[in-house]
Amino acid sequence: MKALVYRGPGLKGLEDRPKPQIQAPGDAVVKIVKTTICGTDLHILKGDVPSCAPGRILGHEGVGVIDAVGAGVTTFRPGDRVLISCISSCGKCDYCRRGMYSHCTSGGWILGNEIDGTQAEYVRTPHADTSLYPIPEGADEEALVMLSDILPTGFECGVLNGKVAPGASVAIVGAGPIGLAALLTAQFYAPAEIIMIDLDDNRLGIARQFGATHTINSADGKAAESVKALTGGRGVDAAIEAVGIPATFELCQDLVAPGGVIANIGVHGHKADLHLERLWSQNIAITTRLVDTVTTPMLLRTVQAKKLDPARLITHRFRLDQMLEAYDTFGRAAATQALKVVISA
Amino acid sequence: MKALVYRGPGLKGLEDRPKPQIQAPGDAVVKIVKTTICGTDLHILKGDVPSCAPGRILGHEGVGVIDAVGAGVTTFRPGDRVLISCISSCGKCDYCRRGMYSHCTSGGWILGNEIDGTQAEYVRTPHADTSLYPIPEGADEEALVMLSDILPTGFECGVLNGKVAPGASVAIVGAGPIGLAALLTAQFYAPAEIIMIDLDDNRLGIARQFGATHTINSADGKAAESVKALTGGRGVDAAIEAVGIPATFELCQDLVAPGGVIANIGVHGHKADLHLERLWSQNIAITTRLVDTVTTPMLLRTVQAKKLDPARLITHRFRLDQMLEAYDTFGRAAATQALKVVISA
Amino acid sequence: MKALVYRGPGLKGLEDRPKPQIQAPGDAVVKIVKTTICGTDLHILKGDVPSCAPGRILGHEGVGVIDAVGAGVTTFRPGDRVLISCISSCGKCDYCRRGMYSHCTSGGWILGNEIDGTQAEYVRTPHADTSLYPIPEGADEEALVMLSDILPTGFECGVLNGKVAPGASVAIVGAGPIGLAALLTAQFYAPAEIIMIDLDDNRLGIARQFGATHTINSADGKAAESVKALTGGRGVDAAIEAVGIPATFELCQDLVAPGGVIANIGVHGHKADLHLERLWSQNIAITTRLVDTVTTPMLLRTVQAKKLDPARLITHRFRLDQMLEAYDTFGRAAATQALKVVISA
Amino acid sequence: MKALVYRGPGLKGLEDRPKPQIQAPGDAVVKIVKTTICGTDLHILKGDVPSCAPGRILGHEGVGVIDAVGAGVTTFRPGDRVLISCISSCGKCDYCRRGMYSHCTSGGWILGNEIDGTQAEYVRTPHADTSLYPIPEGADEEALVMLSDILPTGFECGVLNGKVAPGASVAIVGAGPIGLAALLTAQFYAPAEIIMIDLDDNRLGIARQFGATHTINSADGKAAESVKALTGGRGVDAAIEAVGIPATFELCQDLVAPGGVIANIGVHGHKADLHLERLWSQNIAITTRLVDTVTTPMLLRTVQAKKLDPARLITHRFRLDQMLEAYDTFGRAAATQALKVVISA
Repeated sequence: MKALVYRGPGLKGLEDRPKPQIQAPGDAVVKIVKTTICGTDLHILKGDVPSCAPGRILGHEGVGVIDAVGAGVTTFRPGDRVLISCISSCGKCDYCRRGMYSHCTSGGWILGNEIDGTQAEYVRTPHADTSLYPIPEGADEEALVMLSDILPTGFECGVLNGKVAPGASVAIVGAGPIGLAALLTAQFYAPAEIIMIDLDDNRLGIARQFGATHTINSADGKAAESVKALTGGRGVDAAIEAVGIPATFELCQDLVAPGGVIANIGVHGHKADLHLERLWSQNIAITTRLVDTVTTPMLLRTVQAKKLDPARLITHRFRLDQMLEAYDTFGRAAATQALKVVISA
Repeated sequence: MKALVYRGPGLKGLEDRPKPQIQAPGDAVVKIVKTTICGTDLHILKGDVPSCAPGRILGHEGVGVIDAVGAGVTTFRPGDRVLISCISSCGKCDYCRRGMYSHCTSGGWILGNEIDGTQAEYVRTPHADTSLYPIPEGADEEALVMLSDILPTGFECGVLNGKVAPGASVAIVGAGPIGLAALLTAQFYAPAEIIMIDLDDNRLGIARQFGATHTINSADGKAAESVKALTGGRGVDAAIEAVGIPATFELCQDLVAPGGVIANIGVHGHKADLHLERLWSQNIAITTRLVDTVTTPMLLRTVQAKKLDPARLITHRFRLDQMLEAYDTFGRAAATQALKVVISA
Repeated sequence: MKALVYRGPGLKGLEDRPKPQIQAPGDAVVKIVKTTICGTDLHILKGDVPSCAPGRILGHEGVGVIDAVGAGVTTFRPGDRVLISCISSCGKCDYCRRGMYSHCTSGGWILGNEIDGTQAEYVRTPHADTSLYPIPEGADEEALVMLSDILPTGFECGVLNGKVAPGASVAIVGAGPIGLAALLTAQFYAPAEIIMIDLDDNRLGIARQFGATHTINSADGKAAESVKALTGGRGVDAAIEAVGIPATFELCQDLVAPGGVIANIGVHGHKADLHLERLWSQNIAITTRLVDTVTTPMLLRTVQAKKLDPARLITHRFRLDQMLEAYDTFGRAAATQALKVVISA
Repeated sequence: MKALVYRGPGLKGLEDRPKPQIQAPGDAVVKIVKTTICGTDLHILKGDVPSCAPGRILGHEGVGVIDAVGAGVTTFRPGDRVLISCISSCGKCDYCRRGMYSHCTSGGWILGNEIDGTQAEYVRTPHADTSLYPIPEGADEEALVMLSDILPTGFECGVLNGKVAPGASVAIVGAGPIGLAALLTAQFYAPAEIIMIDLDDNRLGIARQFGATHTINSADGKAAESVKALTGGRGVDAAIEAVGIPATFELCQDLVAPGGVIANIGVHGHKADLHLERLWSQNIAITTRLVDTVTTPMLLRTVQAKKLDPARLITHRFRLDQMLEAYDTFGRAAATQALKVVISA
């Protein structure tokens, strides 16, 4: 089968690989229908993710059709159409029992990282009963690819951790796909203001279309002042960090109101300064989270109920044999104005 | 009346001052029965608290008897015995209505800071109805002085924010009075382990008497390893910071388990490193808080029900005319083994 | 001044009364701009509310202008435009400090019940600082009358107690003004289904306009079956009772899914059967609540942010001298299709 | 093997039965070491549980040693010592993923009810990975039998649902084994008062030994008055129903304070009156729950940490061949003063 393979820092290729086989009773093999590319895949390609060894098939998102299941799988049968979660969850360990699937002792984020992933014609998914989700009849499968990772990530790490609530004020720092996913799902809770902050005017324009009440281009270094001005000097109840660098995390410290939350989504490669000399008395919380995808069933219901339209995040479409072109388009997002690209396998 | 006055960095004195008068309808004047000294008073004396101007009578803790009340006070009458909260709360502003009294727009921590405090024969307390608490008949008034600040601080900022729960593992970094207050109140929730970390073996010994299940002298720089060894390699569910320097806050980052909380109590003068490159995926929360004293009525009930014995924190007793000696004893705690000193006015 | 007075069961009249005066330091006198009539006023007129004595000026809702304030009032000055809460809250007692203003020991629902109310040219409001809310500049004052009672009631007793959440299924039994207020505010949380149940097709039609995803006329006695059919046999996560009779409360017991909540809003005059022989193992909660109006500031923000349009509940408008006609229109709602009537004073 | 078999209403016997075999990949066969008898077993024997057919081996509690496991079991191996939960949980269905194991679509309370149970030498346990718990080394296995059902039931249905909290007041109606289990675990949260109500002075005496602060013999019909007297006229924050008849549930309605919770544990055979005409405005919650055993790992930790001593509930000990005598002793508890009886297999 065709598969996109990581060959080491800076290197990737479309290769022919053997079709994966069931290895454990809980496994399924899924024929991929649609997949996509994540910012994390670009991190891997830079060599920034040591857990991902050269030779790995990339990808942790997708929808597909069950091709085969192990002896212990009780929920799915060949032919079932499924959403693949980016997080594999055994459903048995202490972390899974607490809803913290991201830290599953035999799962977590392993697809396209520690085991072969979804940017291929087939993928083997461990813990299939608790890591795949049945696709409701009549659903827009392409749109559901957004539920593998990006929407639960924006929602769980940003919106839920940020305790977004009716009437609240929210700032989202970073209007990339993840920040926009937080923007879309923040609207589940009817906040009064959602202020989107980025350096890219195109993305800020999209943010306004997606429901941002205000946008700020932070190029002038005055984003904190602007947010204070918009919130009566108080700051925001939830400052959502969706970039992953020290500067944006530190900006969030200037945005958050007393009693508020800084909800980190960004994948950070470096430490940041925490201004405890100022924040110790501000009654704030700072949260971090690797997505658990514990809200996937709920998000599926909101999509079916038309409360959430994930397809708005899709800007480009490719076939699996155009995978290198898809990476190129996604990797040059500022130029191509790509948000999420969908690949048909 | 006699009063302990801050005269500028490094300077204090016992002075004769006029008895305070009612200034606003919500005021009370309270005749002090017992007061105490807080670590924050020492910070002021170092010149570290710019909001406190020279000439200020210090002190934000105490019990007393109502001497006079303003026209708007409905809860108290002269002769009532009251506990004075370190936080003044108007009960009317948005923050007060949300239970965040620390950020009251006309109150917060003002006693012995922005207005004259309790280390005197009398004190004027604004917002009396919502900043004083009636002392139950038969209560040990001396013990209740501990409820002005130290016990709600340890409980709200450490135990509640740390989400201490039955069966949980807790580490408290710092076995001074505040850390010990967290230790005493953490036991409301039957955690499985409370690991106390300090450099002072005397204080660690007291911690064991107060209910710590394990103590670690961190002088060897191996506290994190020891905590990991005690928790099956996992770390603690709640890491409570009760010192207020970067090193101890950063230690907490090495102690906290995935899914856990770092609950900061310490008053910090400097920023600290936040290791987001490691913590971004650990599903943790970091909380800060200036005590709200919103739990004071509950703490009073636990004292009355003998679930909490605040008197254990008292090591020394003085009269108001020995105030300078009291400061000296409290200020040299390592040598004097002082925890809290009580002063009778 | 003109005032609508309760003269005993079945009797009311528009009378001339003296303008109210400040009686306590916390009082305000408010010149009424707009008021309305509540279903509870009709209960009083039937003689069902023994706490309301003949001679009482009715009404507990309205917006107005501060005419005078007592010596202890710090938040408002004459000329300020205010929203009057149906619940008076002292902000000082244990219940108020816990956010349970409905049980304020010197307040609660007293306006137009134990003291004279708002269906008059002026009203005296005790505990003004904590029972009135400033009207934001540019607000639609008529619409804000809906925030005195009906919207916080539907929201707090129905939506918040019902734990309405994104993707959840909700049934609201009763499409009168209160049920519709629950319907409007339930949409803050993006539930997947809101099923409205009533006997009146006109009101069900309005419910569909207001956002109900399904409506059921329960005249055929098959509402429970219909709800089960709409929810895959499971029932709803939140069953909101907005009528106040045993039959509708018992219907809710047939609608609620395992793990769900029955949130009672209705004012009940009789006991109801609770089918514990069936429900004991269903992991449900049943909640009751007299509105606390603790969410009024938040609701004001959602109105200002255009997330909530309270004016949709207003069907008729009158002047104060047409008060008897206003009662007649509101009291014959089935015939007049009245929801809320607004009276200009 | 020997097994205690339900033969129809009023009939039971000790029979020879074939040893159970693995039937599904997720099954385990456990050699029973210790088991016990539950009040529910007595209900079955009266013919009150239609889901339990004659011929069924009874029992849903116990500890044992893994004898064999199915192909899909990954957590346990033969020889492992395990605690058997009364609730079987697949870990995969929506209810299990939400922590509501009691409503597992292929599990729930099935042991000794819909499938053969633990009052035998061996038992087959479905969903072994997620329904058995490893016994910590050095644990008192006999004591842990109390964690199969009675302690999580008292804790989850009574204490957690009742929101027992530091300083709160609690009443527990019924001092049988379940009520006493609620009493023991309520103390995790340092409530100020725990008032135990029963008709049996012996059990009330035990309740005092177990930590009740007050006991009331309700034979005189004045329990509600006594509770009001003990709580300053207010009632209790948590009224825990641990009997299961209308009279005791209705008593709880007289005990609960505004803002409080009635947490039902009792297994009810009949409906009860709910006094909504009084309670609609009291801001209370009523909860029901079939135990989920979601807190079993936490309870195990509290036992290991010596915060909970389950052995206190054990009054009698038998061998499996004395099973009929064990039933007789447990069934005549008033005469034998039995709480829990432990049977060694």
